[in-house]
Amino acid sequence: MNLAEYIDGRRDEHLAELCSFLRIPSVSAKTEHKQDVERGARWVADSLRNAGFKTVEIVPTNLHPLVYAESLEAPGKPTVLFYGHYDVQPAEPLELWTTPAFEPAVRDGNLFGRGTADDKGQVHIHLKALESLQKINGKLPVNVKVLIEGEEEVGSVSLWSYVQKNKEKLKADALLVSDTSMLAKGVPSITYGLRGLNYYQIELTGPARDLHSGVYGGAVPNPLTILAELFAKLHDKNSRVNVPGFYDSVATVSKAERKALNALPWKRKEFEKAVGAPGYFGEKGYTIVEQLWTRPTLELNGIWGGYTGEGAKTVIPSKAYAKFSTRLVPDQDPHKIAKLVEKQVRKLLPDTVTCKFEVLSTGKPWSASFQAPIFKKAQSALEKGFGKKAVFIREGGSIPFVTQMHDTFKVPCVLIGFGLPDENAHAPDEHIALENYFGGIKAIAHFYADLATL
Amino acid sequence: MNLAEYIDGRRDEHLAELCSFLRIPSVSAKTEHKQDVERGARWVADSLRNAGFKTVEIVPTNLHPLVYAESLEAPGKPTVLFYGHYDVQPAEPLELWTTPAFEPAVRDGNLFGRGTADDKGQVHIHLKALESLQKINGKLPVNVKVLIEGEEEVGSVSLWSYVQKNKEKLKADALLVSDTSMLAKGVPSITYGLRGLNYYQIELTGPARDLHSGVYGGAVPNPLTILAELFAKLHDKNSRVNVPGFYDSVATVSKAERKALNALPWKRKEFEKAVGAPGYFGEKGYTIVEQLWTRPTLELNGIWGGYTGEGAKTVIPSKAYAKFSTRLVPDQDPHKIAKLVEKQVRKLLPDTVTCKFEVLSTGKPWSASFQAPIFKKAQSALEKGFGKKAVFIREGGSIPFVTQMHDTFKVPCVLIGFGLPDENAHAPDEHIALENYFGGIKAIAHFYADLATL
Repeated sequence: MNLAEYIDGRRDEHLAELCSFLRIPSVSAKTEHKQDVERGARWVADSLRNAGFKTVEIVPTNLHPLVYAESLEAPGKPTVLFYGHYDVQPAEPLELWTTPAFEPAVRDGNLFGRGTADDKGQVHIHLKALESLQKINGKLPVNVKVLIEGEEEVGSVSLWSYVQKNKEKLKADALLVSDTSMLAKGVPSITYGLRGLNYYQIELTGPARDLHSGVYGGAVPNPLTILAELFAKLHDKNSRVNVPGFYDSVATVSKAERKALNALPWKRKEFEKAVGAPGYFGEKGYTIVEQLWTRPTLELNGIWGGYTGEGAKTVIPSKAYAKFSTRLVPDQDPHKIAKLVEKQVRKLLPDTVTCKFEVLSTGKPWSASFQAPIFKKAQSALEKGFGKKAVFIREGGSIPFVTQMHDTFKVPCVLIGFGLPDENAHAPDEHIALENYFGGIKAIAHFYADLATL
Repeated sequence: MNLAEYIDGRRDEHLAELCSFLRIPSVSAKTEHKQDVERGARWVADSLRNAGFKTVEIVPTNLHPLVYAESLEAPGKPTVLFYGHYDVQPAEPLELWTTPAFEPAVRDGNLFGRGTADDKGQVHIHLKALESLQKINGKLPVNVKVLIEGEEEVGSVSLWSYVQKNKEKLKADALLVSDTSMLAKGVPSITYGLRGLNYYQIELTGPARDLHSGVYGGAVPNPLTILAELFAKLHDKNSRVNVPGFYDSVATVSKAERKALNALPWKRKEFEKAVGAPGYFGEKGYTIVEQLWTRPTLELNGIWGGYTGEGAKTVIPSKAYAKFSTRLVPDQDPHKIAKLVEKQVRKLLPDTVTCKFEVLSTGKPWSASFQAPIFKKAQSALEKGFGKKAVFIREGGSIPFVTQMHDTFKVPCVLIGFGLPDENAHAPDEHIALENYFGGIKAIAHFYADLATL
């Protein structure tokens, strides 16, 4: 029996197993889910053992455990390191899910549930691809190291210190990641660039206590208004980020690359359908694809303050809060950008409020040359899995680990995503197309097999 | 035994009874407290019966009941209508209360709890003043009608239709209200002006669903940013409200009145101590007293949208929300102002979002001449209660009922407040100074007695 037939014969089994993985609410951002995250780690470890990995470790950390496994039974063959994460984003707002976030359900050829696309579904593609190779051949065609963490959605804090302490152990000829998206349905894609991410939180304090807006309104600073005025000043009229120095280190994208990116089968109509906004805008002078993949941003992710309950409360609150983030592109330095952002925020604020400024996480951007032979292997494996030629794309999202690994080990990083841009990663009704999940297992199994002749 | 002695002899009894009133969480804005609000109405009705009122009615409405009572046993004497409210503001944020909001506690000569100052404590002053007169004389010195509602904190919707249907029944020679503040500790005060209040809520919708800020950031409208930009535009650099026509009907305050207001024993130091902000600002060209009492405002009361939980979530939310209000002064028309505000909000918003605009309530401003003889009676009664000469002030807060009654019955409205500006009405740790509560019962009892010779 060949590889594709073997995998096709096990679709129901694979899907049922993925659903059991998705039912674990491994939300890394929330303390109340700490036990669930640990359960997620044990599930991954068990699954790796079933795939034939003899060395499987659950590594405790200061926050959530990571899972490491290795199979080094292919002497003389290349060694690859597969990275993924088993933690997920919070599911809120819960009421906007058609079916509950942690009760996976199939509708119209899609599997719905938190983590289907980001990243449990894609991790499972690798687990099942490796398991299939193991079952058919009795061993893996290459040496494989696996590192699956539980803190990706909260900044991968523990992962990095683990890598620093285990450089020799983790050494590999290439890094494989599946935590990205295909350009569009039916367009298998290999990602060669990611944006970095800094995440911030600010707390403004005006009056020392909440005040009656009738008794005090008109003569006291309202931190909500000051928060609004601050964020109104952080972009100019061309949607450029108004932080001095913010663009100083942004590397120019070559004419040839811009041309190639704009020639991709990317459809504005599909993009607008996925977003569903009444209108669009972005940084002047760039196409949407360029805005999304090659330009940095500053984005509000949450604001709150004052009375937000039912009905009316005439209050001038003492405090106003915002969570916001900057997406970064080569060659912006996250720590330098964090300093510039804090400096500008403090400069723009009036002296009628005090400001607590926190950097919750930082992450570097990354882009690579896709001329290395391994990229060609990836392209041909995807063609075997999907029957279509793969394209090379960049992405707007961030996987700090990729940059860190690239910087540390100086090896090619190959990002093969099986999500789709409209699959609501980080939002209600997250899902993955079943054709990409099943096609992904086949493509990835072929990829591991083909790497034997790299 | 004279009136003052009688009242002084019952301090503990009065205080204990007030505490039982305060323990009822009659929060009118929250559906979950509907039963508690009804309990509040029954408590008031019982208390009026104990004070000797033979006609006491609990009047059901579409929302919360109001309580009406009358004692018309003083033929040939004036008739006064006392108005107050037994509902309270929500107690949130609960964690900022030193002792729980609905478990009254005495500290440093103050009684703490939601409703102590606004307005249960002040209503209780009248209840106990009337009861004392009744007990000492066997009857009240004047004819008294009492109207105590349960919807003041949510716009007094039912009250007004009740008044319209019962004009003859409610007819009186004067309206008495205690729902305001003294200028400062030791300065008994009579209020002759109030601001009006319109309360609004808006919901902005950009993308049809929450989006991953990495995948989409840079090319889609972020409703949080647009909300910030909107509110940044609603004031100019001199802190004037940027709504065309907003100031058109604002009546000029005479030089003499401005001079009198600015000569009051109002202390900036006390104001700043009460507010506790790092800095202050208000509409250019006006003193703080003028800003608070004679100038209209537009104030954010709450904002929310996106991720507001623990940690980080990289989301561009579909929706952003704000609650805000305008305080109005004579002769601004609330309905006209609501239209102007909505028009400007819609004009300032870009076409990348849609906006749901709601007017939650409207209320007219009020100011009166304080030359009527009843104001002199009030001044002398306050002197009897507090041993100090009372001053005439305006207030920045709103009591829509006062305006409506004044417009309907064309009778003097006398507002005698026993709260203090720093007593956290509408905020955590609301309290009332016990000396004002006890002094208030005496002053108000004298006032009702003195009205017999009006």
